[in-house]
Amino acid sequence: MNTRREVKTAAALVIGNELLSGKIADANTVVLARTLRRCGTRLERVVMVLDEVPAIVKELKALSEAHDVVFTSGGVGPTHDDLTIDAVAQAFDVDVVISAQIEELLREYYQERFTDGHQRMARIPEGARLVVTEHMPWPTIVMRNVWVLPGVPEIFAMKMPVVMNELSGTPVISVAVYTTLDEGRLKPHLDAIVAEHADIEVGSYPKFRHPQYRTKVTFDGPDEVAVIAARDAFVVSLPEDAIVPNVVD
Amino acid sequence: MNTRREVKTAAALVIGNELLSGKIADANTVVLARTLRRCGTRLERVVMVLDEVPAIVKELKALSEAHDVVFTSGGVGPTHDDLTIDAVAQAFDVDVVISAQIEELLREYYQERFTDGHQRMARIPEGARLVVTEHMPWPTIVMRNVWVLPGVPEIFAMKMPVVMNELSGTPVISVAVYTTLDEGRLKPHLDAIVAEHADIEVGSYPKFRHPQYRTKVTFDGPDEVAVIAARDAFVVSLPEDAIVPNVVD
Repeated sequence: MNTRREVKTAAALVIGNELLSGKIADANTVVLARTLRRCGTRLERVVMVLDEVPAIVKELKALSEAHDVVFTSGGVGPTHDDLTIDAVAQAFDVDVVISAQIEELLREYYQERFTDGHQRMARIPEGARLVVTEHMPWPTIVMRNVWVLPGVPEIFAMKMPVVMNELSGTPVISVAVYTTLDEGRLKPHLDAIVAEHADIEVGSYPKFRHPQYRTKVTFDGPDEVAVIAARDAFVVSLPEDAIVPNVVD
Repeated sequence: MNTRREVKTAAALVIGNELLSGKIADANTVVLARTLRRCGTRLERVVMVLDEVPAIVKELKALSEAHDVVFTSGGVGPTHDDLTIDAVAQAFDVDVVISAQIEELLREYYQERFTDGHQRMARIPEGARLVVTEHMPWPTIVMRNVWVLPGVPEIFAMKMPVVMNELSGTPVISVAVYTTLDEGRLKPHLDAIVAEHADIEVGSYPKFRHPQYRTKVTFDGPDEVAVIAARDAFVVSLPEDAIVPNVVD
């Protein structure tokens, strides 16, 4: 598909034992995915690993080679299970150094309460870029094509405008149709649309016991006119009473 | 660590464009993680990929070789974006065949509404096992060490008792302590516990603007006595007023 050739690709590495043990649910992937969608960047792969340096290093190397941009989430505090900075440094074969700029901010913030533990939060991979915006003066660490983001969801979300500020591209337009038919019935209709609208990504999502509909069908692409044309062609191919308007999803 | 050697390892492959575009948040990983924790199975890795056969096949091969058991989520309906059965078959170099057992169930369910689209839902990789329990008579497809689970969260969750029925192991015990201290202050205390209680996994999770606490510290392991001992050693190492009882997390 032509439209994909110019699109930047991305991957995410989500780090933390607490996610893989089910203590908490990952809240950051969906936030990043929505941000990248708005930037016209294609998130192709998300990998979730434990707090273990070898696993993180291996993934980082593979992801940063295979994708234009990579985002890590988690493991950036000062404690024993915060290993991301070390892993990023190791993946790019550089040392970990103290950023004077971040240390100064930390000293200002903590004042007389500043400890060695706090100082660890100023550690960065040597050569990393510190990205600052008007609205987010606390630096975001970017090593080559790897953005090192915090795992705490509230802070992760705060970083999204910084990401959007740097990435740019044509956002993907998405429209949805809700139908009363199941996927087995819809299949020939979907196949026809997929065959005739190769530039549109068509998704089909059955819902379990929704009071209003059985299957949601989505049409995505960077070209709004083409997206709408595919949607309309699908709608006219169905029996009129199979379409559900005004669905609360 | 001795305790880990006997523990089964697991990985998950979560499949679907809708997750990587941020249209919906993955709800299945945390459900699977909690189930595996109760079975004493260590979930080491989760990979999320797009609806693309080559990507799914590549991951399946790698995950099924590196882990004792693998769970896929998504891509098992009858439509053009449901590619998991084909990918599992390809990963294990077998054909896709129609399961007479599943087709019969589908025909019974759909009766005169049964279509070719519905029949596609009876496709399985040749040689797959169909796991049935008293409470879940609809077969769950297991190919070698790969469990093929549906993406729809309500149905995914229904499959968890089937998974628990087959896996067994010592569940991991977890206890938590909530403190008013930030991670910078806690670091030396945490380091001491980690050094002295090598068989316990210690996690430290800062909370952003919680009214009651700043950092949650967790102690995990299969041996309850050892878990409690580590927790108690940590608690007595802190100032008394740093512990917050009765936290609503």
